[in-house]
Amino acid sequence: MAEESSSVEKSYESEELLPWRKQLTARAFVVSLFLSALFTFIVMNINLTTGLIPPLNVSAALLGYVFLKIWTKFHHKSLPFTRQENTVIQTCVVASVSVAFTGGFGSYLLAMSQRINELSEAKDNDFKNPSLGWIIGFLFIVSFLGPFLVLLFRKRMIMDFKLTYPSGTATAHLINSFHTSRGAKLAKKQVRTLGKFFSFSFLWGFFQWFFTAGKDCGFNSFPTFGLKAYQNEFYFDFSATYVGVGMICPYTINISLLLGAILSWGLMWPLIEKKKGDWFSAELHASSFHGLQSYKVFFFIALTLGDGIYNFVKVLATTILHLFSELKKDVNAVSNPSLRSTSGVSFDDNLRTQHFLKELQIPSRFAIGGYVILAVISITTLPRFLPLLKLYYMLGDTLPHIFPQLKWYYILVLYVIAPVLAFCNAYGTGLTDWSLASAYGKLAIFIIGAWAGATHGGAVAGLAACGVMINIVATASDLMQDFKTGYMTLSSPRSMFVSQVVGTAMGCVISPCVFWLFYKAFDDIGQPESAYPAPYATVYRNMALLAVEGVSSLPKNCLYLSYLFFAAAIVLNLIRDLLEKKVSQYIPIPTAMAIPFYIGPYFAIDMCLGSLILFVWEKINKAKADAFAPAVASGLICGDGIWTLPRSILALAGVKPPICMKFLSRTANVKVTTFLAT
Amino acid sequence: MAEESSSVEKSYESEELLPWRKQLTARAFVVSLFLSALFTFIVMNINLTTGLIPPLNVSAALLGYVFLKIWTKFHHKSLPFTRQENTVIQTCVVASVSVAFTGGFGSYLLAMSQRINELSEAKDNDFKNPSLGWIIGFLFIVSFLGPFLVLLFRKRMIMDFKLTYPSGTATAHLINSFHTSRGAKLAKKQVRTLGKFFSFSFLWGFFQWFFTAGKDCGFNSFPTFGLKAYQNEFYFDFSATYVGVGMICPYTINISLLLGAILSWGLMWPLIEKKKGDWFSAELHASSFHGLQSYKVFFFIALTLGDGIYNFVKVLATTILHLFSELKKDVNAVSNPSLRSTSGVSFDDNLRTQHFLKELQIPSRFAIGGYVILAVISITTLPRFLPLLKLYYMLGDTLPHIFPQLKWYYILVLYVIAPVLAFCNAYGTGLTDWSLASAYGKLAIFIIGAWAGATHGGAVAGLAACGVMINIVATASDLMQDFKTGYMTLSSPRSMFVSQVVGTAMGCVISPCVFWLFYKAFDDIGQPESAYPAPYATVYRNMALLAVEGVSSLPKNCLYLSYLFFAAAIVLNLIRDLLEKKVSQYIPIPTAMAIPFYIGPYFAIDMCLGSLILFVWEKINKAKADAFAPAVASGLICGDGIWTLPRSILALAGVKPPICMKFLSRTANVKVTTFLAT
Repeated sequence: MAEESSSVEKSYESEELLPWRKQLTARAFVVSLFLSALFTFIVMNINLTTGLIPPLNVSAALLGYVFLKIWTKFHHKSLPFTRQENTVIQTCVVASVSVAFTGGFGSYLLAMSQRINELSEAKDNDFKNPSLGWIIGFLFIVSFLGPFLVLLFRKRMIMDFKLTYPSGTATAHLINSFHTSRGAKLAKKQVRTLGKFFSFSFLWGFFQWFFTAGKDCGFNSFPTFGLKAYQNEFYFDFSATYVGVGMICPYTINISLLLGAILSWGLMWPLIEKKKGDWFSAELHASSFHGLQSYKVFFFIALTLGDGIYNFVKVLATTILHLFSELKKDVNAVSNPSLRSTSGVSFDDNLRTQHFLKELQIPSRFAIGGYVILAVISITTLPRFLPLLKLYYMLGDTLPHIFPQLKWYYILVLYVIAPVLAFCNAYGTGLTDWSLASAYGKLAIFIIGAWAGATHGGAVAGLAACGVMINIVATASDLMQDFKTGYMTLSSPRSMFVSQVVGTAMGCVISPCVFWLFYKAFDDIGQPESAYPAPYATVYRNMALLAVEGVSSLPKNCLYLSYLFFAAAIVLNLIRDLLEKKVSQYIPIPTAMAIPFYIGPYFAIDMCLGSLILFVWEKINKAKADAFAPAVASGLICGDGIWTLPRSILALAGVKPPICMKFLSRTANVKVTTFLAT
Repeated sequence: MAEESSSVEKSYESEELLPWRKQLTARAFVVSLFLSALFTFIVMNINLTTGLIPPLNVSAALLGYVFLKIWTKFHHKSLPFTRQENTVIQTCVVASVSVAFTGGFGSYLLAMSQRINELSEAKDNDFKNPSLGWIIGFLFIVSFLGPFLVLLFRKRMIMDFKLTYPSGTATAHLINSFHTSRGAKLAKKQVRTLGKFFSFSFLWGFFQWFFTAGKDCGFNSFPTFGLKAYQNEFYFDFSATYVGVGMICPYTINISLLLGAILSWGLMWPLIEKKKGDWFSAELHASSFHGLQSYKVFFFIALTLGDGIYNFVKVLATTILHLFSELKKDVNAVSNPSLRSTSGVSFDDNLRTQHFLKELQIPSRFAIGGYVILAVISITTLPRFLPLLKLYYMLGDTLPHIFPQLKWYYILVLYVIAPVLAFCNAYGTGLTDWSLASAYGKLAIFIIGAWAGATHGGAVAGLAACGVMINIVATASDLMQDFKTGYMTLSSPRSMFVSQVVGTAMGCVISPCVFWLFYKAFDDIGQPESAYPAPYATVYRNMALLAVEGVSSLPKNCLYLSYLFFAAAIVLNLIRDLLEKKVSQYIPIPTAMAIPFYIGPYFAIDMCLGSLILFVWEKINKAKADAFAPAVASGLICGDGIWTLPRSILALAGVKPPICMKFLSRTANVKVTTFLAT
């Protein structure tokens, strides 16, 4: 990785590292609580308006820093503010705010309601209206499974695979840069570079905002390669974030993304579109799940699943082999720092690894045990007298009790599959920064929806299953990002874990309350023309209705082709592993290829531009590029990230952008000009 | 100037300088003829479509180079191709093509026609239809006055004032860079920098083109500071040309431009607009000359005139004083190179100045004599037997013969004022690169139109006077640009003069012929909805109709305020001259301030951005900025300039840009979206 050429940690060498319990200060959690509430409001508003969730890691890190700086300024006797404490705040806030997304308030949860049911294609009585009580209960049941799973993968992902987690890395760079007081000259220069690109990216985001009054307006709808290419989502959307992400991600990833984009949006989708009327009905709406949309989601899931399962099996096999060969040692101690060679590893990496392993004393049985216990609690109707579980039980509830449609064996199946998918998603996020929890959630809709069937309330069952899946899978990847940040800021994995659990608990209360405010204040939530159309709610409802009709309802050849993609993912991985490193690095990575299938090629183009910039820079001056590229990338990501905060506040305050930068074809422009003149 | 820090001329030191007659090769004129025809076609097309004239200096230099390179490649025995020859081609082509503008084929000349007369506000029989014969004659009479006037100012402008002439400077950099074969390392680096920014600017122009399908489309209509500011022409139009020009122009100029822009479009015009209904009728069309437009043109003319006359008088006084003090010496020999101190002057400047003065042997009496003789020929009905003038007389004609409405005393007045205005315009162009010949032309419309009056065919008289004025004033500034290029490429001023005369003669034949083709081929030229709407023709016609009503027709206070601006210009200049240099450099320059009055602030914003870039660059690394800023600026100007060539060819071939990047207010966007959805 690029930051190896210069040492951040050397500038912190003189600083004493606090034990993990000292990293978890009361003031950190007070600030976290305040920021969580603030961000949840912002996220909920955007989520119910457009269905999007802006990434707020960076904002959380920055605001956490600012708040605690002010705090320490006014309380002179207080302990010094360390970067570990900063990371704790950031982790806690992210864990809390991410519940606003995983709770599905703009998607699956709202989709269950009667309001949305009345809007959907088919109408039946298969609905469940939201209510503050059961939502909080539901979230408490399903939100803590993710953190336990993460404990299992953590070391693999961060130390063995050395996955990038671009957002996490950028946040860590930012936090490190904040706290460098007497760092090396280079570190200072890096901070200055970061600051410069941060400002640029922030101002650029601000500037772009003015031109986004309406759909398809502004720079992120810029048909850079022409209108024809734009229709197939091939365009550069001027997103500073993804150019930065592209600079952090390895070349292989970016090229794989582009390959996937060309294969899907350049080749397959237009070809499948031509089969309209043959493979699927020609009268379908573009977003209908009986048509092209189905191929997109299923091919994507097939490739990711193939890749994920291959890697899961591989890791499992390696682990078991290790276990047998070093029978008496704990699995976690296999790569003990004292045994590891440090040659060829940078000072920073070495120190971080040592620290990470030293603090990594949470045994696997704790993680597995925690997961199983939570799973059992949520499924069964355990006798209420078990005193230890009483408090938890009061807050939560059993899933079959909340959703009678969701049979206990459905949930068991979900809980068995979930770890595999969580692993896949955490792996994919580590590679590309895209968390695809919602895609796995859709898979759950189909599996459980089809299984339950229409007559047994399959729609609500599917949506509830979706919720379980999204919660497990999304928290796993979100929290892995935080672990990466923690790794790079020498924060203890233990304090990270505690911070995550506390943050999640906050989120399980804050998010439903904020949602409830919106739900009660605006009784037209979900109506297409209202201020809060929540577009995804209707989409999820329709998916669930489709699912109950079973696999047979999928368009022609969709399933067979999905098998093919699944196989292709495994074959690609096999080739990768069998070839030498020199050749194998040119083999594309299936997960990376799959993501544009669903999202579209535009972000792949952003990221490839980032790669291109880095490539040219390295050609011109390798040393400088290695030293400053991560700072530039982080600056780009963070500036754009922070901008989401004022943008959201503007949106909340009802300040709308004044101008629409629209792109019309010449003929449309003639029409519009005449229309406006009259 | 910035290029002083490195020497271009040193890389040419070993090259023998040819005497001026050898610089004028036959092959140069053959290539010039071909390029003139090509460019005239392009310019005429754009001129009749939008009324704009793209600056083609750079294209001429580059294509001249390419053609002669090919020529010398195929004729191995031919003389080597020198940069002086290149400059000769460029000068000849520019002189020829500029007739396509000064001929007024899209403005005053077309405005005289019956077709346009029928479209104008008031209809009368005061028109004169174009015909190939009289147009050629007219052009031959009025086109050669400019070159003679230029001979008079040349030394003052280029050597004493050291005016920049940004386009001329950029062209010279380009030509110099083409011919550096064994130049210094720095020169090569400069060429590479120029090449890089040239490519960028060219590609940027190309990219912009795709989004300009229609009026108010594309980056040059980008409301960078919001729609409100855009309505007052405050926006950054993404023009690489003017950012480059801003980098070449001194800071004082750019700041003056911005001051003028804020004073006029930010303050005065909105205030005057508020007086609508009081100072002028509220029912007027925005472009009507009875309203705001009048203030713009008159204030502009007042400021420029004040500045120009002050400088004219100052120069005249200095010259006369010199004349008296060194009674026996020729005026031109006053600053003989042998007498001049060379300390503090760069090698390049010194060499160029020496060369320029050595070759500057055309005495002033030749220039004055030429001007007077041409003036007399065109006014009087001199006896046809004067043998020397016979040929000329056959081609030309007397002005009163062509336009019976134009009395000989009108012309005499024009010819007396013209040198002053030509001086003003050449001076202004040297400062800012904007030639404002058309504004001086409008002044002529008003003076002569009002004088002649409606009953005596005042409209045609005014328009013809406009033609006379534009021809003299525009050629003076265009050719001064070429002199600057010649100065910087060590071309002889004599060969420049000959090349200009030959080029102008070519233009006087080519341009009318090309126009005639268009005029005959498209009989709807001038019709608003046709392919060639020639918008300025109607505007000029209406101005002429307004003029015949006299000064009294001007809106309230327009004249008094104009006097004020005239006085202000003189006062500013006096302050400038009386103060020390240290303070006086902060006094704005009236001519520069005046230009945005008429054009709008957008180009001033471009230029200030150029200044800002240069300023920051100089703060970071003064040496590097000094060495490379001119190359960057020239690259930006040239790339954009060359792009006009393929753009014009695309336009001629009927290839239109496919996309319109439109900027709508939020409310308009809502309307348009609904409209497009139906």
